[in-house]
Amino acid sequence: MRILVVNPNSTGSMTAKIAAAARRVARPDTQIVATNPADSPPSIQGFLDAALCVPGLLDEVRRARDYDAVVVACFDDTGVDALRCVVDVPVIGIGEAAYHAAAMVSTKFSVVTTLSRSVAGLEANLLRYGLDRRCGRVRASDVPVLKLEEGDETTIDRIRREIEAAITEDGAEAIVLGCAGMTDLMSRLSEEFQVPVIDGVTCGVTMAEALVASGLKTSKKRTYSLA
Amino acid sequence: MRILVVNPNSTGSMTAKIAAAARRVARPDTQIVATNPADSPPSIQGFLDAALCVPGLLDEVRRARDYDAVVVACFDDTGVDALRCVVDVPVIGIGEAAYHAAAMVSTKFSVVTTLSRSVAGLEANLLRYGLDRRCGRVRASDVPVLKLEEGDETTIDRIRREIEAAITEDGAEAIVLGCAGMTDLMSRLSEEFQVPVIDGVTCGVTMAEALVASGLKTSKKRTYSLA
Amino acid sequence: MRILVVNPNSTGSMTAKIAAAARRVARPDTQIVATNPADSPPSIQGFLDAALCVPGLLDEVRRARDYDAVVVACFDDTGVDALRCVVDVPVIGIGEAAYHAAAMVSTKFSVVTTLSRSVAGLEANLLRYGLDRRCGRVRASDVPVLKLEEGDETTIDRIRREIEAAITEDGAEAIVLGCAGMTDLMSRLSEEFQVPVIDGVTCGVTMAEALVASGLKTSKKRTYSLA
Amino acid sequence: MRILVVNPNSTGSMTAKIAAAARRVARPDTQIVATNPADSPPSIQGFLDAALCVPGLLDEVRRARDYDAVVVACFDDTGVDALRCVVDVPVIGIGEAAYHAAAMVSTKFSVVTTLSRSVAGLEANLLRYGLDRRCGRVRASDVPVLKLEEGDETTIDRIRREIEAAITEDGAEAIVLGCAGMTDLMSRLSEEFQVPVIDGVTCGVTMAEALVASGLKTSKKRTYSLA
Amino acid sequence: MRILVVNPNSTGSMTAKIAAAARRVARPDTQIVATNPADSPPSIQGFLDAALCVPGLLDEVRRARDYDAVVVACFDDTGVDALRCVVDVPVIGIGEAAYHAAAMVSTKFSVVTTLSRSVAGLEANLLRYGLDRRCGRVRASDVPVLKLEEGDETTIDRIRREIEAAITEDGAEAIVLGCAGMTDLMSRLSEEFQVPVIDGVTCGVTMAEALVASGLKTSKKRTYSLA
Amino acid sequence: MRILVVNPNSTGSMTAKIAAAARRVARPDTQIVATNPADSPPSIQGFLDAALCVPGLLDEVRRARDYDAVVVACFDDTGVDALRCVVDVPVIGIGEAAYHAAAMVSTKFSVVTTLSRSVAGLEANLLRYGLDRRCGRVRASDVPVLKLEEGDETTIDRIRREIEAAITEDGAEAIVLGCAGMTDLMSRLSEEFQVPVIDGVTCGVTMAEALVASGLKTSKKRTYSLA
Repeated sequence: MRILVVNPNSTGSMTAKIAAAARRVARPDTQIVATNPADSPPSIQGFLDAALCVPGLLDEVRRARDYDAVVVACFDDTGVDALRCVVDVPVIGIGEAAYHAAAMVSTKFSVVTTLSRSVAGLEANLLRYGLDRRCGRVRASDVPVLKLEEGDETTIDRIRREIEAAITEDGAEAIVLGCAGMTDLMSRLSEEFQVPVIDGVTCGVTMAEALVASGLKTSKKRTYSLA
Repeated sequence: MRILVVNPNSTGSMTAKIAAAARRVARPDTQIVATNPADSPPSIQGFLDAALCVPGLLDEVRRARDYDAVVVACFDDTGVDALRCVVDVPVIGIGEAAYHAAAMVSTKFSVVTTLSRSVAGLEANLLRYGLDRRCGRVRASDVPVLKLEEGDETTIDRIRREIEAAITEDGAEAIVLGCAGMTDLMSRLSEEFQVPVIDGVTCGVTMAEALVASGLKTSKKRTYSLA
Repeated sequence: MRILVVNPNSTGSMTAKIAAAARRVARPDTQIVATNPADSPPSIQGFLDAALCVPGLLDEVRRARDYDAVVVACFDDTGVDALRCVVDVPVIGIGEAAYHAAAMVSTKFSVVTTLSRSVAGLEANLLRYGLDRRCGRVRASDVPVLKLEEGDETTIDRIRREIEAAITEDGAEAIVLGCAGMTDLMSRLSEEFQVPVIDGVTCGVTMAEALVASGLKTSKKRTYSLA
Repeated sequence: MRILVVNPNSTGSMTAKIAAAARRVARPDTQIVATNPADSPPSIQGFLDAALCVPGLLDEVRRARDYDAVVVACFDDTGVDALRCVVDVPVIGIGEAAYHAAAMVSTKFSVVTTLSRSVAGLEANLLRYGLDRRCGRVRASDVPVLKLEEGDETTIDRIRREIEAAITEDGAEAIVLGCAGMTDLMSRLSEEFQVPVIDGVTCGVTMAEALVASGLKTSKKRTYSLA
Repeated sequence: MRILVVNPNSTGSMTAKIAAAARRVARPDTQIVATNPADSPPSIQGFLDAALCVPGLLDEVRRARDYDAVVVACFDDTGVDALRCVVDVPVIGIGEAAYHAAAMVSTKFSVVTTLSRSVAGLEANLLRYGLDRRCGRVRASDVPVLKLEEGDETTIDRIRREIEAAITEDGAEAIVLGCAGMTDLMSRLSEEFQVPVIDGVTCGVTMAEALVASGLKTSKKRTYSLA
Repeated sequence: MRILVVNPNSTGSMTAKIAAAARRVARPDTQIVATNPADSPPSIQGFLDAALCVPGLLDEVRRARDYDAVVVACFDDTGVDALRCVVDVPVIGIGEAAYHAAAMVSTKFSVVTTLSRSVAGLEANLLRYGLDRRCGRVRASDVPVLKLEEGDETTIDRIRREIEAAITEDGAEAIVLGCAGMTDLMSRLSEEFQVPVIDGVTCGVTMAEALVASGLKTSKKRTYSLA
């Protein structure tokens, strides 16, 4: 099958990292097509960026051909509802994919994201999905998205500190990494902390494969009916 | 990979139907091992059956070897929490798998199950998973589980009637079939009603594959720590 | 004071109607500046339109000068979060304004909106605001937004039918009109049904005046901090 | 318009302070009539005081003439439901007014009130209004209501300490001052902490004006029907 | 032990009926002291009556001596919180007693009360107690409280109609009778409908006995601390 | 009356302690019959033990004769739903009994239980009962169940530490002891901490007496209908 993975920001190096992560877990018979709009904000941090990147995201998807599912590789799942109105294949946000996966391997998870300005949006998503009930807390590491691209250890230490606190203070049994740019940290931090540390890009791809293999498409009844 | 699919009731014909459904959607490189305890209730209808089948279910899993995930093929997800305490691979109930899938292809789903005595258990699960917020209503069709094995049209008509009501009255955009014995109705009813009609066996297998491909295991922190 | 009322769709006749409604209730010393983007969808019906109109909405606000508050005259409150990131004066969506007002004059209200594709978005807003607990039901009248501009009686009859049902079946003690285009129906339907029938444009303006008079501005701590 | 502001306790100096705050923000064309019962508890701290002051509060309102709205100037909104049964103009509690205002200028607020015995009542109100979902925490400063009348700095420092904790620990983006006696601290503490610090008397008056200007009255359908 | 049962309205015949019901279920060693204020509303229907009866209710309790528990025999549990501030023995409202009992003999109950103006108050209580999650619906029979004193069959038929609807439409497995004046209908309607039909006076007395026998008193930490 | 108290684990010394506690509070005319299965896990700690003890628990009850109510003396209320399907007298878990009692003597309680692996099960129960809204937090003392049988002071000190924290940090006004093995600590710790410290065995017996005296039986409509 063919999965279209759209990074809604315009930072090509992130798209490349996302594509690599996607390919690492995809089925042998899955083709990953990774893309990003050219004229989007360089990173999606908070409600303003999330709103501004949607038209470009929609254009990328409209331009694409012959895909069986779309993965929106931005942890705040921006544009997912709008996309579901224009295509009928499954559309999955990496945030929701990670939350659903976390809910099946633990009784409670916490999210470690980038800036505090992103927390309210993630909390709103969790509430709407119903999965706030499974979430201990959404924690900001105060690491800006693009800082993750540099990948130095002090940056990762800030993430480690929040994971530690989530396990100790929130009763978290699993950790969800709250940014597509953290995708390369999943296995490493899982091993370090001995709890599932869950990346949305990884789960977005495997969940998309699961929905396609199950023969499911986006419901066109009411909310997502084609305009 | 190898997925152990356990039907917790003792009706072999249901296990065979479940195995066939599982194989229909599994990856080419996935091996499905389907089994059921010999001394379990013949069907799981309500809290009493659900409690009685768990020791046999645990035995089946303890006897098995070399599987990468366990799917509990009973829609009320009985024994899933207990199993997560004894293995470290992912354990998925077909109820939760179907709910998570439904939540990614619609804004609201309804469940159509067998007897009214099963409704409260499903509602309790949905509440605990958080997905009650996405569920319009859990509807009983008054079709006993084993009646489904006969597969006559009057039986299916009762299910149709509830699907119709769910779409019209509950605002459901997708339907979740609330019994492993309904697994063969998924594609047929999806086509008839033009909304996703979702079967848990199907989603249990593909979601299990997704978790395994993502490298995830059951958290052993706190709740599911090995005794 | 000066209140900027932005209709995020591009239908000028709706903007004119909204401006008139706004002026009808504004304080004598309030100046209403009503505007709309030129290149937006002609009406906002569902998640796709809601996403597409936001960049134009942001541009309209950025272009404006010397206003004390912004009212977003679209009942699904699209773009309100994004706008709060770019200005520090109060920004109010007409949906939330109407819900807050309804919550102060009744114990339970229902919403009567346009198409069924808009329902899920309004439900998501109510949930996030917390006011779903006060709402009986969000009802679609199946009247498209632009049909409201024609204002014929058969159209209004469909709205009447839902109001009637809301009072009888939902236990609603007040009705919220779920579209900016219904603004001219408020007093007329209030009289007919002898319950408060509440329009968001009206409440958006008076609530904006209330916040400004109270000396309140949008918090710049965390979520809405200036980028 | 004429707004009747009733302080349900019998402390005249508080009524004077409340009246001054009300007049500071009222429209030029609004007349504020402030009053209090003679035989009420001197302050409303907890469920007992709240119950005892209601008959006097009702008498004050029944005695009054020609007002367009009633503001109950006690932060636990005592008697508001009872009053809505006897008048048809809008009746607003300063607690609810402040919560609704806070919900429109922030994603999350915390409340700083007087004694710990008042916390449960405020939590019960927030739950009923639905706005508990927007509230980080209700914090007691351990300052008795009448101590506020003295206005010394050590008293205010205790309030400051809770505001500080609310911003740091609760993730509060706005603060609601949980007592009518704190009305004079709003602008001063807003400036100090650089977040909206919201007073209920202020918002009660401006929200009352908003409802009146919107042409809204208390619904007389069911709950508040005239006996 | 001695249990003080206070009917907060001033209708002596209701007090007598309540006393008889209380004595019917009380332990042989329990003494029931039933009383009512002289100057209260004749029945408690809605928020206004509920507020007005509290001072008299408090006086009755303050006047009494040597009781081990207080039962407030009004289904909307008016004054219970205030009373808990003035005594340290257990104080139970008959509404909460009935809800707690219903929650232990069924998975879901519905309430059948008197007038529609009482519904919102009961819903608010259920929400605060947490037991709204167990309640299908609060239904008004449109029978005024004092009409129950006459006890004719047409009156009871209206209650029957709502019980029938609760079982069929709400999925109720038990019925809670929402008025002290219905106390004599419990066993009769239980037999007729073959589900538990639960009266609050009955449960108020037996639950009070249970708390006293358990050695429990009202917590004096924070909310109910003695003023 | 006769109350059957079943300890679902196989530790006879715990059954003896439970029986003693039950007799201490039972009515003079109540006969307590205490029992435990022979082949159950020695203690119930977490989901696995909870599932494994149910068949033995059901057998014990089926073997018994002439009882008026059943109390399941395991704090996670395991098997209560299954038992309600096989008997029609009231069946009460000591967890739910303690929560309902706590809800009538305080506005907020916290639970102090044994191991952290038991916390998620208790939280799931609270959620389903609706009483999570009244619970500050479920706290693990890290004392294994059987360690309680030794009763040394260091063990009790660990429980004391959590009670202290619950009062200070959670705002708890009452404490629920989250294990049948803590039954002998109730009066002692209540005195020490001057808040209600509530034991489930105690409340299970008195609540069972209350239901029986009220003439209530388990509803046989839908969920618990006899198979």
